[in-house]
Amino acid sequence: MNDVNAIARLLKPRSVAVIGASGDAAKTAGRPVAYLRKHGFTGDIYPVNPRAEAIGGLRCYPDIASIPGTPDVGIVLLGAERAHQAVRELAAKGTAAAIVLASGYTETGEEGARRQRQLIEAAGRMRILGPNTIGLVNLTDNIVLSASGALEMDHFPVGGISVVSQSGGILGALLSRAAPRGIGLSKLISTSNEVDLELADFVDHLADDPDTKVIALYVEGVRNPAKFRAAALKAAHAGKPVVAFKIGRSEAGAKAAVSHTGALAGADSMYDALFRQVGVIRAQTFGDLLDIPVALATGRKLRGKRIAILTSTGGAGTLVSDDLGMQGFETPAPDAATAAALRALQRGDHAVLDRNPIDVTLAGLQPDLLRGAIEVLLKSPSYDALAIIVGSSSLAMPELMAGAIEDCLPHSDKPVIAYVSPHAPEVDALLTQRGVPAFAAAESCTAALGAMLKAGQWQAPAPAGVASEWVSIDDLPSGSLDEAVAKQLFTRFGVDCARERVVETPPEAEAAARELGGRVVLKILSGEITHKSDVGGVAVNLTPETVGDRLQAMASDVEAKAGVRPQRFLVQEMVGGGTELILGVHHDVLGTAILLGMGGVTAELFKDTSMRLLPPQGGLDREEAIGMARELKTWPLLDGFRGRAKADVEALATAIVAFSQMAAQLGDRLVEAEINPLFVLPEGQGVRAADGVVVLAG
Amino acid sequence: MNDVNAIARLLKPRSVAVIGASGDAAKTAGRPVAYLRKHGFTGDIYPVNPRAEAIGGLRCYPDIASIPGTPDVGIVLLGAERAHQAVRELAAKGTAAAIVLASGYTETGEEGARRQRQLIEAAGRMRILGPNTIGLVNLTDNIVLSASGALEMDHFPVGGISVVSQSGGILGALLSRAAPRGIGLSKLISTSNEVDLELADFVDHLADDPDTKVIALYVEGVRNPAKFRAAALKAAHAGKPVVAFKIGRSEAGAKAAVSHTGALAGADSMYDALFRQVGVIRAQTFGDLLDIPVALATGRKLRGKRIAILTSTGGAGTLVSDDLGMQGFETPAPDAATAAALRALQRGDHAVLDRNPIDVTLAGLQPDLLRGAIEVLLKSPSYDALAIIVGSSSLAMPELMAGAIEDCLPHSDKPVIAYVSPHAPEVDALLTQRGVPAFAAAESCTAALGAMLKAGQWQAPAPAGVASEWVSIDDLPSGSLDEAVAKQLFTRFGVDCARERVVETPPEAEAAARELGGRVVLKILSGEITHKSDVGGVAVNLTPETVGDRLQAMASDVEAKAGVRPQRFLVQEMVGGGTELILGVHHDVLGTAILLGMGGVTAELFKDTSMRLLPPQGGLDREEAIGMARELKTWPLLDGFRGRAKADVEALATAIVAFSQMAAQLGDRLVEAEINPLFVLPEGQGVRAADGVVVLAG
Repeated sequence: MNDVNAIARLLKPRSVAVIGASGDAAKTAGRPVAYLRKHGFTGDIYPVNPRAEAIGGLRCYPDIASIPGTPDVGIVLLGAERAHQAVRELAAKGTAAAIVLASGYTETGEEGARRQRQLIEAAGRMRILGPNTIGLVNLTDNIVLSASGALEMDHFPVGGISVVSQSGGILGALLSRAAPRGIGLSKLISTSNEVDLELADFVDHLADDPDTKVIALYVEGVRNPAKFRAAALKAAHAGKPVVAFKIGRSEAGAKAAVSHTGALAGADSMYDALFRQVGVIRAQTFGDLLDIPVALATGRKLRGKRIAILTSTGGAGTLVSDDLGMQGFETPAPDAATAAALRALQRGDHAVLDRNPIDVTLAGLQPDLLRGAIEVLLKSPSYDALAIIVGSSSLAMPELMAGAIEDCLPHSDKPVIAYVSPHAPEVDALLTQRGVPAFAAAESCTAALGAMLKAGQWQAPAPAGVASEWVSIDDLPSGSLDEAVAKQLFTRFGVDCARERVVETPPEAEAAARELGGRVVLKILSGEITHKSDVGGVAVNLTPETVGDRLQAMASDVEAKAGVRPQRFLVQEMVGGGTELILGVHHDVLGTAILLGMGGVTAELFKDTSMRLLPPQGGLDREEAIGMARELKTWPLLDGFRGRAKADVEALATAIVAFSQMAAQLGDRLVEAEINPLFVLPEGQGVRAADGVVVLAG
Repeated sequence: MNDVNAIARLLKPRSVAVIGASGDAAKTAGRPVAYLRKHGFTGDIYPVNPRAEAIGGLRCYPDIASIPGTPDVGIVLLGAERAHQAVRELAAKGTAAAIVLASGYTETGEEGARRQRQLIEAAGRMRILGPNTIGLVNLTDNIVLSASGALEMDHFPVGGISVVSQSGGILGALLSRAAPRGIGLSKLISTSNEVDLELADFVDHLADDPDTKVIALYVEGVRNPAKFRAAALKAAHAGKPVVAFKIGRSEAGAKAAVSHTGALAGADSMYDALFRQVGVIRAQTFGDLLDIPVALATGRKLRGKRIAILTSTGGAGTLVSDDLGMQGFETPAPDAATAAALRALQRGDHAVLDRNPIDVTLAGLQPDLLRGAIEVLLKSPSYDALAIIVGSSSLAMPELMAGAIEDCLPHSDKPVIAYVSPHAPEVDALLTQRGVPAFAAAESCTAALGAMLKAGQWQAPAPAGVASEWVSIDDLPSGSLDEAVAKQLFTRFGVDCARERVVETPPEAEAAARELGGRVVLKILSGEITHKSDVGGVAVNLTPETVGDRLQAMASDVEAKAGVRPQRFLVQEMVGGGTELILGVHHDVLGTAILLGMGGVTAELFKDTSMRLLPPQGGLDREEAIGMARELKTWPLLDGFRGRAKADVEALATAIVAFSQMAAQLGDRLVEAEINPLFVLPEGQGVRAADGVVVLAG
């Protein structure tokens, strides 16, 4: 329906109309024309304003109709009351996209929502960025389509990081924070209210953009999960890491985000799952949203966790080492050959070169020593990356130091980062521009290296999920299934369940218990009563001799408590010696997720769960299922902790895959499903679903 | 033994000798004289250098003996080979303290350690700062006794934060980072190798310093815990918060710290306990070591968790709100009266003033609106503090904005902080200098407010611990006590133990079981075999009828497995229906701690423990004991989680206090002690120590 090249024309227009332009550059409406020219736009600019002849020496047009030819982009600076008229006229001209800056849409309530619908209708086939956006900036091509005050700055380093943000103010903040640090950016786009163009559209486009190496996202809420998934996977396959900072992690933040843009916010843990599954690296702090991309944009590869720290100031080396250690990085001492090579660089001073941090404090700033040490460390088989600590001694001759470091970069593709201990923004910028991302916080170093490790380890999932054999389910009733029927459903899809018999009378119960052998569990069987234990509807550790009497006692008990005399019961083999887990589905605006949790009240207190979203078609693959189990903080309980028997993780994976295939096939029909408990027995003995809940839509 | 005024003379000398001064200000040895003069020292400066007549226009002395009178401080710039000679001569002069910059002491190995002993001997009664220090800076009095390159800067804001650091480089970094942010400092001291003066000495001194409001510490390891505790408590009682960033949180960091200064590092969790108990606020990141003090130095009081966020840029308000929410802060919408007062400020624009963040984006920068909104929010009973989000629109007229904010401060003592969204260091500095600490990260805002809350909540502990009645223990053997004797010891101090009888034969066991009533547990009794279960030495759920046979079977089992036939057994009442905890002691260089942990393998995986150091005399008080239980992540298990019975927390507190008194009285004699499990029964039913280990020194 829309022009496929519209986004390309929006990001790199040959001509721009500015509707409602003002000649006063101090006003917001005066900025776009001023910024376009200041930052070197070479195409045509058409200011539109009926009350001006010319703006900044450019001919000003009284209305959109008078503009000669078709502007690629129209920047609409009119208020929300009039913006839709300009949008309609631009669309009539064949403009590719309109950038609507006005606020006063859904973010302000019902009247705003009405205006927003009006805007969409007016655009027709033309694309809209916004409204409530600050527009976009294409630094690579010197094109500024924005009124952001951040653009008052004269110069911005150009580089391989593109940013898409659902908040305009945040985009401006990122732009203004990146420049003084020497962090080079390419495209910056504020999508804001997203009446049309959204995050995923730009991720999809930037995945093909030769000037973009890393895509950074500021996310308030993903509107179209399927589109986002596809775009993120496209970027991943193109070798372009996507880094996302998402707010709404806390309830307060989620509320603020929703009222900010009116985006639907899914559960934060679902975003974790979505991002992980499509290879999006989640920035844990807003600061990480620059720190991680600048490291990834170097294109250098981190293959392990062993970091050499070269320092000219003792305390700061310790600081970085300590923080790296907190996140599982290692800072081993140099191996014998590396230590010998380092010692060979010394000249009779006190520098201690055979520990890590490798301390050249006392050698002062000797570029040759620095160069020598860097080369030795980058060559060393003991290290996967190098962190250089810059102390105040280096500040006197930053060029010399930066030059020495830069010289060594081509000899290795291992990551090299810098931590600058004193306040020295010019040194940070110099190093970053020379290809060594520089940070002022140890946590930034750790986050950057952590992300580089993740980026290297991520494996693309099977493109379309794992489809199961088609399982017939036409015979299933709708509504809440009773336990026996729920387990039959699980069994059909391949989840092993505890053996059981449905009985109605004491003699039937006795016979069932004898048939099953060993001790048994007796439970009432009802689609209505879901909390069986609460009404006395569960008894364990029974024998064929005791089960009959217990059935009669239970019937009376439950009748007294629940007001209904149960007619049917389940006699089930008693499962022992396993680890109890919970396996369930969770629906959310982001999709359907499979949830695995450790059983037991303590694990519940620690919220020990892992989650995976179902891919577009089919269930989870086996590797993801095992990944879910390994991600549990209590994974050691399944893995032979303290002399326990190792659990049958292979059988658990089979059960998770089967359960996920059930969820995939049933789709929206599956309102609720949970196996609780799922006993995972020792290796070779399988799993047993011992109880479960299923609710099916009609 | 030492001059009590020595620290005062060191921090504010009237005269300074600089031993080994150089006329070349580019050299390290040229810096102290240059910096003293540059930063306005008004006392006498005596450069000492046999090869110079004058340095920077000052008369230079050939040796220390020739200096007229007694310098208060001597800065020793000589290398480690000669520094001790200068120290000896300064001591002979009656100098209060020598600052020894040389490195090459314990941090470099055995030869360095010898030099360090030599230095101590040479100093005699004179005090030493260092060695391996960069000295100290007293900004309040324009006194710079340092060679730190950070002092090249011309101007430093003066304020109420004093810093003591065990790393010189870190001190320089803090100094250089504080200044551009407008953070005012008073004294900065680098203690480094601490052959004499240490952290605690300066904390003690600064607690009395009228110019110091907040003390910030960079800690690698506390050398003298008792002294540190006393100094920290003195500061707390003087109303001066102490904020500490301690490295060595990870193994890698601890190793780096030890090799850096040779300090003994205790377990990091012990530092947590120590800091908490003496009211020291722990900075979680190095950045917090400025962010928290600058907030505390305002002296404003945070009395609750409800934060108003006033923003002129939507996205950033959400960012701050989200992060605050993550740490348990609340950002409620304004109450009706506050909302009405805010609406009264509006002038027909779109500003949305009745939500939180309170968004004045669309009102642009109107100082009157800003002033009005701030006053309304500071007066509002709905809020305990105000966070102002500064967007790029404010950058055009920072003075106007800062002035408007500053005007409102005197009307309330609630905290007011600022988050500056774009890169605008001059705005940060301006706001901070006007009394509104400004931050560039949401996490900094949260850390600052979190620390203000803690600072207000901390209660001084009982000054000397809780002494118990003296308990006779002279009859106890040394070595590993058997379980029965261990529990007798616990009982003597007031810990309730499970009832039990020591038996040797099956008939004795039967009699004991009958006497105890109900089901019993049978265990072998041995001081040597500590892991009874591993050798088949524990059986549960026995009756008087079964216990005799079980005893004989157990004797054979254990003999087969452990090679020794057990002679004595314990018949113990079986305790049921409680929550299992672990109570133990932990010794460390920082002292002796009482450790409480949740029992069970899952809790163990989550390392769910809490810890308190024993105060100098006596055990823990009741409140601390309850605090330990509440600090467990699984505290809900004791507090009626999901319909469980509430546990007898009062009895648990009694047991913890009793156990801690035992540890306090036994002191170093108690090598090891643990109760595991300690059953906490439902409310009113007490606790039962069911098993325990005690090892006593001879």
